[in-house]
Amino acid sequence: MSRWMVWLLVISLPLTVIGEWLHWSEILLFWLACLAIIPLAGLMGQATESIAILSGPRIGGLLNATFGNAVELIIGFFAIRQGLVQVVQASLTGSILGNLLLVAGLSFLIGGIRYPIQTFNRLAAGTNASMMLIGVVIALVIPAIFTLQRPAIGVELSVGVAAITWVLYLLGLFFSLFTHRNIFNYAQDLPDEEAPWGMARSVGVLVVATLAVAYESEILVGTIEHVSKAFGWSDVFIGVIVVAIIGNAAEHSSAVLMAWRDRMDVSLEIAIGSSLQIAMFVAPLLVFTSLAVGNPMTLVFSWPEIAAMVLGVALITLLSLDGKSNWLEGAMALGAYVIMGIGFYLI
Amino acid sequence: MSRWMVWLLVISLPLTVIGEWLHWSEILLFWLACLAIIPLAGLMGQATESIAILSGPRIGGLLNATFGNAVELIIGFFAIRQGLVQVVQASLTGSILGNLLLVAGLSFLIGGIRYPIQTFNRLAAGTNASMMLIGVVIALVIPAIFTLQRPAIGVELSVGVAAITWVLYLLGLFFSLFTHRNIFNYAQDLPDEEAPWGMARSVGVLVVATLAVAYESEILVGTIEHVSKAFGWSDVFIGVIVVAIIGNAAEHSSAVLMAWRDRMDVSLEIAIGSSLQIAMFVAPLLVFTSLAVGNPMTLVFSWPEIAAMVLGVALITLLSLDGKSNWLEGAMALGAYVIMGIGFYLI
Amino acid sequence: MSRWMVWLLVISLPLTVIGEWLHWSEILLFWLACLAIIPLAGLMGQATESIAILSGPRIGGLLNATFGNAVELIIGFFAIRQGLVQVVQASLTGSILGNLLLVAGLSFLIGGIRYPIQTFNRLAAGTNASMMLIGVVIALVIPAIFTLQRPAIGVELSVGVAAITWVLYLLGLFFSLFTHRNIFNYAQDLPDEEAPWGMARSVGVLVVATLAVAYESEILVGTIEHVSKAFGWSDVFIGVIVVAIIGNAAEHSSAVLMAWRDRMDVSLEIAIGSSLQIAMFVAPLLVFTSLAVGNPMTLVFSWPEIAAMVLGVALITLLSLDGKSNWLEGAMALGAYVIMGIGFYLI
Repeated sequence: MSRWMVWLLVISLPLTVIGEWLHWSEILLFWLACLAIIPLAGLMGQATESIAILSGPRIGGLLNATFGNAVELIIGFFAIRQGLVQVVQASLTGSILGNLLLVAGLSFLIGGIRYPIQTFNRLAAGTNASMMLIGVVIALVIPAIFTLQRPAIGVELSVGVAAITWVLYLLGLFFSLFTHRNIFNYAQDLPDEEAPWGMARSVGVLVVATLAVAYESEILVGTIEHVSKAFGWSDVFIGVIVVAIIGNAAEHSSAVLMAWRDRMDVSLEIAIGSSLQIAMFVAPLLVFTSLAVGNPMTLVFSWPEIAAMVLGVALITLLSLDGKSNWLEGAMALGAYVIMGIGFYLI
Repeated sequence: MSRWMVWLLVISLPLTVIGEWLHWSEILLFWLACLAIIPLAGLMGQATESIAILSGPRIGGLLNATFGNAVELIIGFFAIRQGLVQVVQASLTGSILGNLLLVAGLSFLIGGIRYPIQTFNRLAAGTNASMMLIGVVIALVIPAIFTLQRPAIGVELSVGVAAITWVLYLLGLFFSLFTHRNIFNYAQDLPDEEAPWGMARSVGVLVVATLAVAYESEILVGTIEHVSKAFGWSDVFIGVIVVAIIGNAAEHSSAVLMAWRDRMDVSLEIAIGSSLQIAMFVAPLLVFTSLAVGNPMTLVFSWPEIAAMVLGVALITLLSLDGKSNWLEGAMALGAYVIMGIGFYLI
Repeated sequence: MSRWMVWLLVISLPLTVIGEWLHWSEILLFWLACLAIIPLAGLMGQATESIAILSGPRIGGLLNATFGNAVELIIGFFAIRQGLVQVVQASLTGSILGNLLLVAGLSFLIGGIRYPIQTFNRLAAGTNASMMLIGVVIALVIPAIFTLQRPAIGVELSVGVAAITWVLYLLGLFFSLFTHRNIFNYAQDLPDEEAPWGMARSVGVLVVATLAVAYESEILVGTIEHVSKAFGWSDVFIGVIVVAIIGNAAEHSSAVLMAWRDRMDVSLEIAIGSSLQIAMFVAPLLVFTSLAVGNPMTLVFSWPEIAAMVLGVALITLLSLDGKSNWLEGAMALGAYVIMGIGFYLI
């Protein structure tokens, strides 16, 4: 973890505790919680990564692919408990768009400034594109269009869709970690990575950071309404842009770093793998959780959210299917992200 | 024809005749007609195939490409005469989805269990994908969106679209059987297939089976309303799932068998070729017939039907464009089929 | 310029002047203006081309890519000043569809009659496809869907989207003319083209032809309403089909000629490059101009226009991504153009 992340943590975490105790303004608490979650998410990521390396490639891959977006899951849980279902949907949208367009776009652009053309695994890109089509596009368009005719079926249909995408995600893991591991074998070409920490320390860090994230998430969720009133921002804008970015900032920076080192496969694995994880693992879990908690969240997203995600998937599919990237492709993905950001800001 | 198909025929066909004579319940008659049509469709397919082999590759290809879905056409004709236009649209939707997702999905999955990666003709896949884009996506989206603004133009626009897609289908046959036959030449690499029957017997079987299918279709169509009331199923669900499956069951099983034998080209030709035939040959003919009969059927499908077909085409295009398949791709196509099936069941 | 174009010019230009002076019927004036603009657009194109050749490949490429659709811009300017915002949107739609489907379709078809399979630059096709996705699809779908929820944001959102697509277009030029010129280097493989005219004559012709186009455009725009009443055509149909074709007819014929000579790269560069120019350079400029003039034009197009453009882009992307074409692909593109033409005629 870089030095400024440590400083961010050391300053913002105690301040949130003090601030909550002294009843500081909700708006201040919201931003403090945001700032605290960024390095905590980084810590959790590093601890998970460390445990994954120590557990060998298969169990490690499984760990990364299931706990990699734990922060999203925790924030989503508290938001659902508060009944902020729209904010959760918006933050899922924002995470998917952020990973697909912002992270992949920055990676293409930054890497493309240094290398005229960068290449990556076409086969993996094809499998990922098909998974995104079913996990993002089909899983969101079908509920939205079928409930136009009969809104009452929203919950049932969402549960069915969530169950199937969840199973497909697990089958996808089985495919990439077991039956067709050789297609995704770029990890084996890398120099042996050493785990930064031992197992005991990693587990300890993971547990403590998770508890701290849960604490901060509760504050964040509890203050969203005040921020939305004070700044005149919609819940959706806060979810799509603010909440989505803080949960992924640490991961984002490492994707861009990998692009700069011409390891575009790793970059794209972070960007696209993380989108898939949110759409096919986190979102279904939140649907099931929401039913258990009694505030049912459906997969019936708003049309702007659906349009943005479908177009984002289409753009990244087109940009990645040829297995090559350049700076202009990065600029296009970023341009699309800005266009959508303006849209979500204005509505 | 396999032994159990013969038994199915020998039992269900006489029972429908007796049942109609003795005025058995409509629901029983519906299921008997369903069971009778499955082997009859298989017989018709085998007779057509046999005549096609005896007629040489060009005339044979033409025969397969025009009479291959005669059962659909016959059921559609009786349903239109009864005014069940929505059921016809639903059964067209169901046939296209069933061929694209269920048959291709099962073929990818079953073949993929035996072989890690199966390959097929990329060039043919590309031509097929473009044909599906125009014959399914454009031909369905344009009427639906343009009639939003002026519903009155539905019939005229549908006739225009039907005429153009029909001509394109014939041009496509001319392309694959004459001017660019070498691209589609996998049939020539096969060991010489022998026609199972002689010409006279084939024509005889075809005529008798066609008459029997017509008889059973009339019963099927006449009892649909009772079934939909008794089971609480919508006309659309019966059309999409039940009617669509019985008309194609025999064909479906041979596609999967071919995948198991690693002849994925033949599998995909059945799955995608049959979808194209229904969308670009059968559907236009039914539009023209419906005008002649006086119960005009448009190409203005419902939004759930359109969404399901557009997404199905997109998924199969993405899965087939690289000319390779594996079991996960099969699972994805089946997952999409189940998601859509749940949707049609719930509305 | 071919002989009949010269004759067209020599007859129609003086007749418009005389006709306006003698107050001939508006309908006659409309058709005279149409006929005059076709050769004038051709002259402007030839003069621009000539200056481009004399200026070297980079400045020349820049000139072609910015002044290549000046006629569209001039007609659009006068139509916006008259408040005919819908006609401008329709003519933009028509130009994009005409270039994508009519020109590319004719090129594929005519070239495909002579050569069984023609090939072209796959890399350029991929970059163009991504640009069309962002410049046509995203730039049109996002405003239309986001304003469903809040119509008031139409102008602001359109300005934002226009600004970003405009910048992306310029970045695309920088990419193809400077940083990645070698990908687009087919122009260098051609035999050295000689400029038909010297610099002074080219500039002179350009200035005179531009003035004449401006004169004719004002007449054209002023008489559209009468034509739409007299023929019972909607403004949209006139914009999509009539206005769009006359502004591009000269260019269209040279694209088809290039296909006939098996220089499909040049053909596609004209067809797709021109579409991109209209969507990402001309349309944004007209949005900005419309604000300055006080008749704000948004990028919120009608659903039929959006559907037609999205499907057109999808079809051309699918047809061009493999870097190969044949006559059937041409027939498909033309079929799609006719389907859409029927639709726009009927509404």
